[in-house]
Amino acid sequence: MKARRAVVLVSGGLDSAVAATIAKCERFELYALTFQYGQRNERELESAKKVADALRVKEHKILTVPLDAFGQSALTDKKIPVPKQRSKQEIGTGVPVTYVPGRNTVFVAMGLAYAESVGAEAVFIGAHALDYSGYPDCRPEYFEKWNELAKLATKQAIEGAPAKIVAPLVQWTKSKIVETGHDLKAPMKHTWSCYESGPAPCGKCDACQIRAEAFARAGIPDPALATLKP
Amino acid sequence: MKARRAVVLVSGGLDSAVAATIAKCERFELYALTFQYGQRNERELESAKKVADALRVKEHKILTVPLDAFGQSALTDKKIPVPKQRSKQEIGTGVPVTYVPGRNTVFVAMGLAYAESVGAEAVFIGAHALDYSGYPDCRPEYFEKWNELAKLATKQAIEGAPAKIVAPLVQWTKSKIVETGHDLKAPMKHTWSCYESGPAPCGKCDACQIRAEAFARAGIPDPALATLKP
Repeated sequence: MKARRAVVLVSGGLDSAVAATIAKCERFELYALTFQYGQRNERELESAKKVADALRVKEHKILTVPLDAFGQSALTDKKIPVPKQRSKQEIGTGVPVTYVPGRNTVFVAMGLAYAESVGAEAVFIGAHALDYSGYPDCRPEYFEKWNELAKLATKQAIEGAPAKIVAPLVQWTKSKIVETGHDLKAPMKHTWSCYESGPAPCGKCDACQIRAEAFARAGIPDPALATLKP
Repeated sequence: MKARRAVVLVSGGLDSAVAATIAKCERFELYALTFQYGQRNERELESAKKVADALRVKEHKILTVPLDAFGQSALTDKKIPVPKQRSKQEIGTGVPVTYVPGRNTVFVAMGLAYAESVGAEAVFIGAHALDYSGYPDCRPEYFEKWNELAKLATKQAIEGAPAKIVAPLVQWTKSKIVETGHDLKAPMKHTWSCYESGPAPCGKCDACQIRAEAFARAGIPDPALATLKP
């Protein structure tokens, strides 16, 4: 029997590693897709390769998509500083400067193209809404609408088998993601969440703070920090 | 008063030149976006530059988006030949091998990202359904659904001003496009429709045949052919 296939968007971060692990546990054969989009962070890319390896994906494509051509985000524009040591309330308010215009929209579109080319029936993305309430393209209704568009967008769709966009974490808290990753043995130790590169996570940006709190709440030590020890 | 802005997707072909001209006539300030996506055709790119110049766009971004990484199309995969001298009935049947998986979906997504970054209120695309009935991502319902997604996808949307995806030609015949382009003085003479590169259009691929027929029906000589004369 031909294996069922899924495209998994793997950023190198924690969430996408857990989402891809969920796809693996659902017995999909995995086609990993990672984007270089001008993000400052090269550590993420290394992590993405390790995560894809650990999940024994069938194929891993690393593609350059020039979202940095549009600027407007602290993640792609060196002139905009990454905010540090913001309070929990600040993190939860408004659209943060780390928001990259159109990012998930472009990533899901590329995922659909890849899915069509390999005959995959799903595109897994690790987005979640709760801890990043300010990101428009992380909300459940956004992914629901994507699924309606996917039913019209491709040759697969015309032939009656559109790929589904699956965002399994979309309504989860970050600590539930950590717990699930732990239970499913997701390769969390290889993941990188910090908005900066460097020998170790900065510990101060929103992403570091959210990650640390999630592991603390889950009562699980962060395995990525363990690998940093001498 | 600040000029209203529109992103115009400019491929170098006839349709996008006419769509961009319509945006110009609606007094938008134009932000042109052209993609290199591994298409065989470098003539298209030259044409896109000339069209953007002729329309005096405010900015023209030419971005590489690696759709060729996924193969599956005669336009991006050198192993798949471009069909020649197909009958009108053959051209109108099924999804042609020149269909590029996910192409318009990725292009519109990138257009939305660009629109958000420059505060544009519309993204114009020259797709039309009638002469390419086989392309899933050229149908009116596809663009309608895109507009629903655009209302959720961006910070602009959250702030109550989502960019609109405008496909003004979507229900037009190719000859109506030619007539309108002629009336609005669209820079049709700079456009290139042929699926191949070369000193002159091949005259035999679907795109050449559709173009020639459209000019013939409209009773207008093709100004691009005139520029080829010695």
